[in-house]
Parts: sequence; structure tokens; C-alpha cells
Amino acid sequence: MPYIDLPEGFPGIRSLFMYSPDTAKPLNDLVQTLLHDPATSTLTPGERELIAAYTSSLNECKYCATTHGAIAKYQLGGDGDVVNGVIKDPATANISSKLKTLLNIAARVQQSGKSVTPADIDAARKQGATDKEIHDTVLIAATFCLFNRYVDGLGTWTPDDPAVYDAIGKQRASEGYLTKPFRITQQ
Amino acid sequence: MPYIDLPEGFPGIRSLFMYSPDTAKPLNDLVQTLLHDPATSTLTPGERELIAAYTSSLNECKYCATTHGAIAKYQLGGDGDVVNGVIKDPATANISSKLKTLLNIAARVQQSGKSVTPADIDAARKQGATDKEIHDTVLIAATFCLFNRYVDGLGTWTPDDPAVYDAIGKQRASEGYLTKPFRITQQ
Repeated sequence: MPYIDLPEGFPGIRSLFMYSPDTAKPLNDLVQTLLHDPATSTLTPGERELIAAYTSSLNECKYCATTHGAIAKYQLGGDGDVVNGVIKDPATANISSKLKTLLNIAARVQQSGKSVTPADIDAARKQGATDKEIHDTVLIAATFCLFNRYVDGLGTWTPDDPAVYDAIGKQRASEGYLTKPFRITQQ
Repeated sequence: MPYIDLPEGFPGIRSLFMYSPDTAKPLNDLVQTLLHDPATSTLTPGERELIAAYTSSLNECKYCATTHGAIAKYQLGGDGDVVNGVIKDPATANISSKLKTLLNIAARVQQSGKSVTPADIDAARKQGATDKEIHDTVLIAATFCLFNRYVDGLGTWTPDDPAVYDAIGKQRASEGYLTKPFRITQQ
């Protein structure tokens, strides 16, 4: 039961975007450029979605972790094993060494900005991470520290049905973040 | 020393906005509507800046806490005593009972979205807080959990000179967030 009166049939961030269009616009513009637009980062959309899903799982935000896990699955073109591996432990997941060091930076950011150390940055550079990739990783992790708090801090609806997340994942992976959310009729 | 190569003469978030214009645009649009625009909230710009400054102080982000404290001081038209009182302890600060309950919600959000309880929301409602005011409080606190991590996670320049923050505070209180940052020549 949400803490404020939100439109029914829209889960998580979707209900908040319907409730507050003034803030929905810049927040959707932000994730469009940060996660989806191929031209704005040398990290692939799939890698960026993995950072979003991993940060959200550390914040125990089921809605965001499952949604961005599903988007990552579609972006990466696999069966979800990579996503599940990252959520379980990036160190043993089937991903590049560079991405492992970037996910370590994301985990520091999830704790606090001050938790990031020069050693964390050096480790990423040694695996070939650029300034822009380090920047994007920090900002993606910081952005999901916003979204996770917004979604859970107002007690929004978190569906249980995995099919809901799969449908949202499929939509966002193909359309990006600027198209309208659909109403959820399950449950 | 920042962790990535940022433009010199711009502190904190200003250096990151210069470095990454693609993400600066939506982030500035967000704080313009969330903190500054008088038409988008029944909380005053001064009250909204106090929530931003308080959340940033809990995250120990000196750049954001001091900057938004200075903006709040100019928005509230006082000598800074209210801002200092809130940073020290909202419970004893010279602010409304409603704002005290909203700052309590902001403190919960700073910890985690899941830390917000029905009792926190009820306490705010008993002091007259509306759905929109509760929404805005949660989103402002969540937004500064982003900015604080972005600013500190990339090791941006945090000036020591109080005059720098006062100048930024004066600019943003009068102009809002859509005008260009100025270069800092002190230090």
C-alpha cells in the first residue's frame, strides 16, 4: 500500500512518473542518456543496465533490481545467466575484468561517495577503464541510489509476478525510456 | 585531486556539469523544478533547500551541504541561524513542526528507502503535510543521495573558503539552476 495516493495499475517508478510529470520528464531524460543512448557512453547499454541492476540489488530494491535485470537480459541477448551471476557475485560472474572493477566502484558508491578510494579507481584503469567509463559508472550507481529510495521510500507497488518484469524489460530494452508506461493488469 | 580529468576552476557538481553536458541538462532541469520553481510545490524554495542541505549533511558531503545551506539562507532571508539549527538538530531548530516531521522522513530516506515507516508518514500528516509535500520531501532527499555520491565518488574539488559557497548560494537563490556556473578564482 503506497504512502501517498498513486494511480492504480502502475508499479514502482511508473506510478511515481504518472503522479509527478514535472519531475518524471528530467528523470526519464537522465536514464535515456545514461543507460540507453548508444552514442553517450563507451559502455554498452547492457553493461550500463547491469550496473543499475547490481546497485539496486545492493539497495534491496526489488522493483528496480528485477526491472533493470530484465532490461539487461534483453540488452545482452542471453537467458539471464549473466544478470543472475552479477547479482550473486560480480567477482565470479561471466563478465569482463573491466566490468568487474567498475561494479566494485558501483558497490562503493552504493555505500557512500566517500567510500570510493584511489585504489578502486586504479584497479579499473589497470583493466582499461577510461575517465568517461568511470564517470558513467559512478553516476549510474548514484542515480539508482536515487531511484531505489524514491520507489521504496513512498511504498510503491512491487509486483510478485516475474512476467510483469519481463514485459517491462522487453519494452525498455527496445524502446528506451521516453515511451509511455503500460498499465499492469496482472494480480 | 579529482579521480578523473575535470575542468579546473569549477568545484563540486559544477565541474561534473562541465565535464558531462548530456547528463547535466536533465539533472539541472530536475533541481530547477524540485527545488526552485515556486509553482511546482507547496513547500517554499527555502524549505526545499533546507531538506537538500540537511540530507547532504547526513551524507557528509561538504560541498553540497554548504552550497545548499547557503542557498537556503538566501531563500529564507535570514542570517543562517535556521540553516545552522537544522544541520545541528532539526528537533530543536526554529522551524515549523511540519517541517520537522518532513526532515525526519528525509533522514530515513538518507539511510534507505525501506527505512521510511507508516509511523513517519502519519507523524507528518498529523502536522498537516500533504501527499505532494511528502512526495517532494522523499524525492529531494533521494536526489541528494545521488548528488552527494556523484560529487564525492569522483573526488571533486571542495573549496575551503566560505565566500565561495556564499557566492554560489546567492547566485542560485536568485537565478535558479539553469544559468551557467561561474569559474572560481579563489585559492
